[in-house]
Amino acid sequence: MESFSDGVIAVAITLLVLNISVPEPRLLGHHGLAHALLAQWQIYAAYVISFVTIGIIWINHHVMIGRLREADHAILILNLLLLLTIGVLPFSTSLLATYLKQGEGQNLAAGIYAGSFLLMSIAFATLNSHILLRKAHWLHTELPIEERRRILTRSLTGLGPYAIATALAVVSPYITLVICALLALFYASPIATGVTKAPA
Amino acid sequence: MESFSDGVIAVAITLLVLNISVPEPRLLGHHGLAHALLAQWQIYAAYVISFVTIGIIWINHHVMIGRLREADHAILILNLLLLLTIGVLPFSTSLLATYLKQGEGQNLAAGIYAGSFLLMSIAFATLNSHILLRKAHWLHTELPIEERRRILTRSLTGLGPYAIATALAVVSPYITLVICALLALFYASPIATGVTKAPA
Amino acid sequence: MESFSDGVIAVAITLLVLNISVPEPRLLGHHGLAHALLAQWQIYAAYVISFVTIGIIWINHHVMIGRLREADHAILILNLLLLLTIGVLPFSTSLLATYLKQGEGQNLAAGIYAGSFLLMSIAFATLNSHILLRKAHWLHTELPIEERRRILTRSLTGLGPYAIATALAVVSPYITLVICALLALFYASPIATGVTKAPA
Amino acid sequence: MESFSDGVIAVAITLLVLNISVPEPRLLGHHGLAHALLAQWQIYAAYVISFVTIGIIWINHHVMIGRLREADHAILILNLLLLLTIGVLPFSTSLLATYLKQGEGQNLAAGIYAGSFLLMSIAFATLNSHILLRKAHWLHTELPIEERRRILTRSLTGLGPYAIATALAVVSPYITLVICALLALFYASPIATGVTKAPA
Repeated sequence: MESFSDGVIAVAITLLVLNISVPEPRLLGHHGLAHALLAQWQIYAAYVISFVTIGIIWINHHVMIGRLREADHAILILNLLLLLTIGVLPFSTSLLATYLKQGEGQNLAAGIYAGSFLLMSIAFATLNSHILLRKAHWLHTELPIEERRRILTRSLTGLGPYAIATALAVVSPYITLVICALLALFYASPIATGVTKAPA
Repeated sequence: MESFSDGVIAVAITLLVLNISVPEPRLLGHHGLAHALLAQWQIYAAYVISFVTIGIIWINHHVMIGRLREADHAILILNLLLLLTIGVLPFSTSLLATYLKQGEGQNLAAGIYAGSFLLMSIAFATLNSHILLRKAHWLHTELPIEERRRILTRSLTGLGPYAIATALAVVSPYITLVICALLALFYASPIATGVTKAPA
Repeated sequence: MESFSDGVIAVAITLLVLNISVPEPRLLGHHGLAHALLAQWQIYAAYVISFVTIGIIWINHHVMIGRLREADHAILILNLLLLLTIGVLPFSTSLLATYLKQGEGQNLAAGIYAGSFLLMSIAFATLNSHILLRKAHWLHTELPIEERRRILTRSLTGLGPYAIATALAVVSPYITLVICALLALFYASPIATGVTKAPA
Repeated sequence: MESFSDGVIAVAITLLVLNISVPEPRLLGHHGLAHALLAQWQIYAAYVISFVTIGIIWINHHVMIGRLREADHAILILNLLLLLTIGVLPFSTSLLATYLKQGEGQNLAAGIYAGSFLLMSIAFATLNSHILLRKAHWLHTELPIEERRRILTRSLTGLGPYAIATALAVVSPYITLVICALLALFYASPIATGVTKAPA
């Protein structure tokens, strides 16, 4: 299960680069390439934020699946739903990058962008809680209930900020972008992942 | 063999997202982005149905190959043919999504869509029956002949509905789409896969 | 090494589907979708031949690397060159599929198509001979020199037909296509691969 | 961690082929396909140089991670940043290939091309030094401090030439291209990688 999930996440994270388009030479105008590259800074911002966010989901997924000795039908299906939400991210990233430089549609695009992260977080928390609450006897090392609750609380606290980021897209797409960037930074910190050691 | 197959299936399932096109800003018209995104709902429907169907084929493939201790030339070639039919799905999904919103060509596109699932099911059933009937001595754990017949019957019963979905495309592409969606839902249920436990 | 090579080959084989383009609805004309799909039969032919050829190279690669216990710098670099020639195949397949329906350029495109298979075969034979002749002490199970020569002869006999297919592109691209198809069929037969049993 | 990294690098290296575009038949002019294919030689040069460079980074990454028994949060994040810089290479390769045949923008494109290799080298050296200096107790086999310093010096000496290649893009993009090609050749030599034996 891990090798397939790793494959899907690895392909999704690498497909993000297809969103970074090379400026069409014929359409450069008199400003030149440098100007055209700088003018699409939204594409790079969306690329970095999505890359780091998917990367962190992979780290969390790796830790979560690494705990499991066995999987049943529910785990396989919940995992598939999580991969479905991850697989959509190259699209929502491309949507945001395209409309952030347009006059209209920015707010909706930013809402869908943060909303797709929210969806992914919900799918992740659902899988995580299924494993930790119902299939705790399949873990490699037994975890006390307090520790399991701590892990779960951590995945649930991600939902709030993404819901806020989605809602604030109505106000400004840039606020949404900044919140998503801050969340990526926060989740990349050791406090958030709680990883101290994992098999290489 | 499993790592290569997992790779091909993971790439095929993730490439599906390339079909979800970002609406061209210049072509939005006065209806705006929301309208343009909703107007291509067929693309999302096709994406979700194809994603779940490929995902379930992966689960079944994982269980089937997980039973095997060794592989011979026939298994490798039959597996390659199965991957060939899976590799085609991003195309047939894109074809359906494109033509479902056109006035003409809908029926043919839906027929090819369901037909490609039918082809994949035939390839899967062929590989499965080769393994269970002819190479049963290569299974990790010996399976009684009744159990093997039950597994085979399950993979064969998939063919009928997909053949019906393909044929009904002449009547309406939406009937085909609904049947494919219901089949994905049905196969995602624990009764259909018969998975109770698998190594994580 | 195997997981990386498997990944590259899996991505290359799955990217082939991007060559199968969905006919543009606006450009269908009065012949309709069925006609447009049939008119690009060269694309499907090239897809199937390339898919099967890459698939067989994977089988052979899997068997070859499966024999190895350790790898040195030369093996890693020769393997990388083999992957380089495999990575180019989605391009040469697309080139052939595009120009086979054009009036001109057909012969050159077919020559490059078969030529890229020839190049891949040369890279494979080079890696194979390096392993079997110079690094025979790194094999999992010792192979007598006659057996090693037999395996090598088999990989070398592939070069001739591909060289002929490349040369005959001057006469007709369809002859080249048919030879490549026959070679794929031949290599997919158990006589050619010599695989009797491999770990699943 | 290795299977995910292998996946990302394998997808990035294979996506490079999407940059090799098939000449549009309608735009061939009277020179024909051969001329059009030769006229885009910059694309092939950029493809080969990027492919070999990413391949060598993979070899080095494989050796580096192969030394590790365990990973902590810092290693996972530094590895993710390295993958981020590798994931960008299909874009910078495409940018160089597009602008090398244009009159303007060549220098900037070449600078970004070599600059992205420089960035990747910095990310690699950072991860490598973190592992060898701070997490040396997690290595499978203990390495004496002199040996660790020798490995580190080797990854640091890569930075200089790439910085020079980036700076010289102001003078001529072709000088940059030649330096990057020579570096790929040099790093592919056994002296540079220092690999004598690795598990297959």
